[in-house]
Amino acid sequence: MFLKNKIQISLVAIFLITASCNAQSKALAGKQKSKKQEHPSLVLTKSGVEKIKAQLGTVPLFDKTLATVKAEVDAEILNGIEVPIPKDFSGGYTHERHKKNFLILQKAGVLYQILDDETYAKYVKDVLFEYAKIYPTLPVHPQTRSYARGKLFWQCLNDSNWLVYVSQAYDCVYNYLSENERKQLEKDLFRPFAKFISVENPQFYNRVHNHSTWGNVAVGMIALVMDDAKLLETALYGLKKDNIDPNAKDNDGGFIKKKGQKVGFLANLEEPFSPDGYYTEGPYYQRYAMYPFLVFAEALENVKPELKIFEYKDGVLLKSINTLLNLTDIEGNFFPLNDGQKGMSYFSRELVSAVNIGYYFGGNPTDLLSIAKDQGEVLLDDTGLAVAIGVRDGLATPFIKKSINLTDGKDGDEGGVAILRAPGTKDDYTLVMKYSAHGLSHGHFDKLSFSYYEGGNEVIQDYGMSRFVNIQQKGGGNYLKENTTWAKQTIAHNTINQNEGSHFGGSFETGSAHHSEKYVFDVSNPKVQVISATETNAYPGTSLHRTLTIIKEDDFENPYLLDIIKVDSETENQYDLPYYYLGQIMSTNFKYNAPEVLKPLGTKNGYQHLWNLGEGKSDSENAKLSWFNKERFYTLTSVVSNEDELIFTRIGANDPDFNLRNDPGFIIRKNNTKNTYYVSLLESHGHYDPVSEIAINAFSAVKNLKIVFSDDAYIAVQIENAANRNSLFLLSQKDNAEDSKHQIKIEDKTYEWVGAFHLIKI
Amino acid sequence: MFLKNKIQISLVAIFLITASCNAQSKALAGKQKSKKQEHPSLVLTKSGVEKIKAQLGTVPLFDKTLATVKAEVDAEILNGIEVPIPKDFSGGYTHERHKKNFLILQKAGVLYQILDDETYAKYVKDVLFEYAKIYPTLPVHPQTRSYARGKLFWQCLNDSNWLVYVSQAYDCVYNYLSENERKQLEKDLFRPFAKFISVENPQFYNRVHNHSTWGNVAVGMIALVMDDAKLLETALYGLKKDNIDPNAKDNDGGFIKKKGQKVGFLANLEEPFSPDGYYTEGPYYQRYAMYPFLVFAEALENVKPELKIFEYKDGVLLKSINTLLNLTDIEGNFFPLNDGQKGMSYFSRELVSAVNIGYYFGGNPTDLLSIAKDQGEVLLDDTGLAVAIGVRDGLATPFIKKSINLTDGKDGDEGGVAILRAPGTKDDYTLVMKYSAHGLSHGHFDKLSFSYYEGGNEVIQDYGMSRFVNIQQKGGGNYLKENTTWAKQTIAHNTINQNEGSHFGGSFETGSAHHSEKYVFDVSNPKVQVISATETNAYPGTSLHRTLTIIKEDDFENPYLLDIIKVDSETENQYDLPYYYLGQIMSTNFKYNAPEVLKPLGTKNGYQHLWNLGEGKSDSENAKLSWFNKERFYTLTSVVSNEDELIFTRIGANDPDFNLRNDPGFIIRKNNTKNTYYVSLLESHGHYDPVSEIAINAFSAVKNLKIVFSDDAYIAVQIENAANRNSLFLLSQKDNAEDSKHQIKIEDKTYEWVGAFHLIKI
Repeated sequence: MFLKNKIQISLVAIFLITASCNAQSKALAGKQKSKKQEHPSLVLTKSGVEKIKAQLGTVPLFDKTLATVKAEVDAEILNGIEVPIPKDFSGGYTHERHKKNFLILQKAGVLYQILDDETYAKYVKDVLFEYAKIYPTLPVHPQTRSYARGKLFWQCLNDSNWLVYVSQAYDCVYNYLSENERKQLEKDLFRPFAKFISVENPQFYNRVHNHSTWGNVAVGMIALVMDDAKLLETALYGLKKDNIDPNAKDNDGGFIKKKGQKVGFLANLEEPFSPDGYYTEGPYYQRYAMYPFLVFAEALENVKPELKIFEYKDGVLLKSINTLLNLTDIEGNFFPLNDGQKGMSYFSRELVSAVNIGYYFGGNPTDLLSIAKDQGEVLLDDTGLAVAIGVRDGLATPFIKKSINLTDGKDGDEGGVAILRAPGTKDDYTLVMKYSAHGLSHGHFDKLSFSYYEGGNEVIQDYGMSRFVNIQQKGGGNYLKENTTWAKQTIAHNTINQNEGSHFGGSFETGSAHHSEKYVFDVSNPKVQVISATETNAYPGTSLHRTLTIIKEDDFENPYLLDIIKVDSETENQYDLPYYYLGQIMSTNFKYNAPEVLKPLGTKNGYQHLWNLGEGKSDSENAKLSWFNKERFYTLTSVVSNEDELIFTRIGANDPDFNLRNDPGFIIRKNNTKNTYYVSLLESHGHYDPVSEIAINAFSAVKNLKIVFSDDAYIAVQIENAANRNSLFLLSQKDNAEDSKHQIKIEDKTYEWVGAFHLIKI
Repeated sequence: MFLKNKIQISLVAIFLITASCNAQSKALAGKQKSKKQEHPSLVLTKSGVEKIKAQLGTVPLFDKTLATVKAEVDAEILNGIEVPIPKDFSGGYTHERHKKNFLILQKAGVLYQILDDETYAKYVKDVLFEYAKIYPTLPVHPQTRSYARGKLFWQCLNDSNWLVYVSQAYDCVYNYLSENERKQLEKDLFRPFAKFISVENPQFYNRVHNHSTWGNVAVGMIALVMDDAKLLETALYGLKKDNIDPNAKDNDGGFIKKKGQKVGFLANLEEPFSPDGYYTEGPYYQRYAMYPFLVFAEALENVKPELKIFEYKDGVLLKSINTLLNLTDIEGNFFPLNDGQKGMSYFSRELVSAVNIGYYFGGNPTDLLSIAKDQGEVLLDDTGLAVAIGVRDGLATPFIKKSINLTDGKDGDEGGVAILRAPGTKDDYTLVMKYSAHGLSHGHFDKLSFSYYEGGNEVIQDYGMSRFVNIQQKGGGNYLKENTTWAKQTIAHNTINQNEGSHFGGSFETGSAHHSEKYVFDVSNPKVQVISATETNAYPGTSLHRTLTIIKEDDFENPYLLDIIKVDSETENQYDLPYYYLGQIMSTNFKYNAPEVLKPLGTKNGYQHLWNLGEGKSDSENAKLSWFNKERFYTLTSVVSNEDELIFTRIGANDPDFNLRNDPGFIIRKNNTKNTYYVSLLESHGHYDPVSEIAINAFSAVKNLKIVFSDDAYIAVQIENAANRNSLFLLSQKDNAEDSKHQIKIEDKTYEWVGAFHLIKI
């Protein structure tokens, strides 16, 4: 793919979006209050419920989920109603109780519909009236940390979660309630609730952010139940007035709203998603936002089909499901790009929704059924029924994750995230390279960073966020200060750090104005897969160009990773390239000191959190570091000069609350350098079994790694392996055209090739 | 159980052993050369082979193993014969190649017998002749590290491994070979081989040690094949002359031989095994020694049934199999007592042998079949066939690991190892307390130490050994110097350390002269299981008494561990009690400093390997430390004074080769103290799931832990829980009789009980 094509596609997309936007606006206006609203109609529908009832007992996955949900709700009903006065942060009793309430209410509503058992309707009614009793006099939440404090929870975000779920419960028991009961609930609870999270908190509601998505959807869902077209318009297009200061920020340090920015649900759908369905905040928050996006889309499709919400922005919502599933490792865990908690996976309830809704509204792609099978549960609605029937009928096909490139930015022109995947002898290898836009307030300063996986194991890790979500002991379950001082900083990532400062001077504002650029993404040859990208703004006056290639050659047990970074600067600088490996060091081929006391590696920008475990220099042209993790061996072979400092680190300095994971790292440092290359090769090799106590293939197969040619336009890297055979990787650094012809001369031999890169045996 | 009974039992046992010894000696003499030896007869037998052939294709587990072994051997035959000139340490090519050769030869011999395919016999013959070609002129191995260098390997130990396996191969092809071929092999290979590891290396052969067991068995096995009664006698009773200096030591620091000590196979069977079948070196080496013990016992039983080897020492060999299986965690991994590599488990080939032989010769205990099922393979002989038939016929019953006490010492009077097991809500809890003898050269200075498991996860870990067995990069796969400077030292263990010195001054000689004493082992009430033991020699003038109790109470989610240590000394000392927890600190209830540079905690005896991460003091009477590991929460609540120093550590200082695991620890230090108590309570509570992001029961349920009474004879510990209910644990420290009556008065209330301990609700 070439940039030119991409731009053309994007222009077309913008035209379509604009056109579709107008159509939707008209459709909404024309249809409002045109017919008496049925109930339920948002997620469950009257006809859907009939279908479900008819199938009960014949669809195993659905029946199993229903039994689980029934057991869970029955236990809660037995436990009795608890609607405490709000007090705690997440992880605390009142927070977790109100969270449980909304999850259970939604489920109880569904059970009432499916099982025709008024126990559940009565339970929903009773709980709702408890809320209606306290809500009118509830002050804002006593915890003051949020830029938008809620009433039930410490932030409006969680209040919105509540309303998204409870609207569905209300929809399910709507007809069970008398008109007077509904009036009272709407007057004392739902309308003031919706008003509080919107009109009274415009800084929360009128943004492009996952927070606002939840807010907009909460208001939109209750608007649909109450059949209130005006409120629905507020949900779709935001508040007309908000008086938000364009310099205001939220408590993650993100801007509230750019001047003139469109807001509301449709804007939230349009802006953070790229045409490829990549959500700029990263997969962890994409997962979080998927639930409101999709459940509201489902509700809109059911109640206002004329909006054609699933076709919006060229069907981006459905695309995003596929994208999100691709942003996982082999075990279904999301890559922890930007702020992301490790361990979050497609087994989350949000992804159960996404997969079910994607299957039902997306033309029944059978590969989603295999994910649903893994998940082992479905939604208790039309979509879940369809999925469970598909699974029952054996329609599932494997969900195959391929090497893909995902553009970032509303129009797909703000860099992206590339994933290369290659099968090994035991496990698949997965490389994730980030060359995207900043990622709003959850972005990290990690241009051109990467992470690398072998099966479900991290080989080179991305640290993720510094937060223990909902674990009260750790800062109330919120972001820890080390998220800013460490996790977001450049040195916390596997990328170039200049002069011990973070990219963009660590400025969110500057970072948000820029993105990296793709140079090459080419996976047409499964044995030589390349992602290459450039970054020229992270350090003004310095340009970075990184090319990551996964190469499969017969002389190596597994595919290896070749990492080439070209650094060009107008000034002399210190460059640091860390590799955050995991495991225990087996050997090095260079000498290093072992300090008697440990000191932090630096004083700021994340360096203050690294213990310096020792430094060395290589007297050969390759520095080799071998380590061992989870019964496997790894070796990083790097081209170095005898001036390069090789530094061993461990995370954990200046961490008085033990908030950080004490993981190791290895830094290659070049001092007083203008232009340079970093070239490294990472192998996974062999294994060791503590039961047989046999070590297989415990040594690197790289005999020598050498830059045999380099000028401003080209680099040639020669890889000599243990079998004394040589490969040459040729790269044009200035011309990425697929059909350009290149020629360089190395020691009297001329090499010619077509396209940006070429691998040959020599 | 009481000491008096124990002594009586032991006296009887000694009498029986002596009697049986004499009988065996006579039997051996009487029977020798009385009939022409059949082949095969050691492990495979002629009649066994017939039985196996008749059953082929009808016994799935046997057939599966046979297919696997055949595939493995066929691949090796295809690969061609490699008998290199010895050169490398373990992990290196020549070492691993010779190791592979003996494993394959044994299997090829078996295949020849079972499949009647001469390909395998010819392969064995060809390989044997390659060895016969090089052996006569082979010098001792070029690596000089061992106190008993081998010829094929760097130590006689591995040469002996070779002969134990290859004898079996020779037995299988004995009749395939011509008499001349046999003569040549015996002359050039087997006889000089046996002579080298015995007569030429008495310091290796004439010991009580796993090394000598291998040596004796190697000689014994080849003696049986060659039907050489004199050689067999050398195997059973050792060399008559050896001229070993009684002060000589091996390279692990162990004594070679005490003056007047009996040697040979029978002595090795008699001395290191306790009457309970506990092998004093610990489970890792017990596993290692089990193979020669059992395979030779099987061969003796087949060739010399009149020896009644399985009845020797009251059937200790068969008992030891059951003991060893009990010395594993829930996943089958051996507890890493003394020198032990973590991850070694009952899936090892030695335990496949043990389980098969134990089943066949031990009266067919059906619980062994469930272990065999887990192992998924069997021996290709009569024993394996019997096991596979048992499994096929559905006879397997669960192998239930109960709380047990295992005595140590030849006569069972040298302390022991206790294992307490208690079911929790999610997993079983397992406590392992060591109060045994030193454990020969593989012993650690860790009197009264313990480790604690939740399911297969270590909660409080035993470090195990500092060695990467057979990983060449790490010191040739041998013991690392940190095994001595760290892993063996007292501070590396969860026990009391006085004045920063190890038990017995770190002297192997002194440590070997002593053992701890059991005070109470009582698991009659599954809700209050107690192991209590004393140690008075580790630090002369100081007595240590530790009582570890697993208590299950309704107010706690899981059983908790109560740890009471009474320290009494004639002098004022510094005492350190470390807990090597695993995971990340969640919270503390006390303040501590966070140093800007890390320094080692001390200078010697293991302290030089600990980084001091910070120290604090508690201003309340309880210090609480909570941590998080593998989705679970843990809290240690300790009774402390405001003088006690609370120290956070991490292993890894003074470790220039990165040989140590960088695990955390927590030390409670008392300065200038004569007599004191350490009282702590360890809870496992709740869990956190990164997918649902919900933290359940994340906080300790202990409100207060208090010593409400203590004098020289008694201690009473009160546990107040979060539900404001109290329990009282009463312990008599001086009288452990089951029927003694005790009475103490606490704040005007009198408490009476019978037996050493008592738990009551108050």
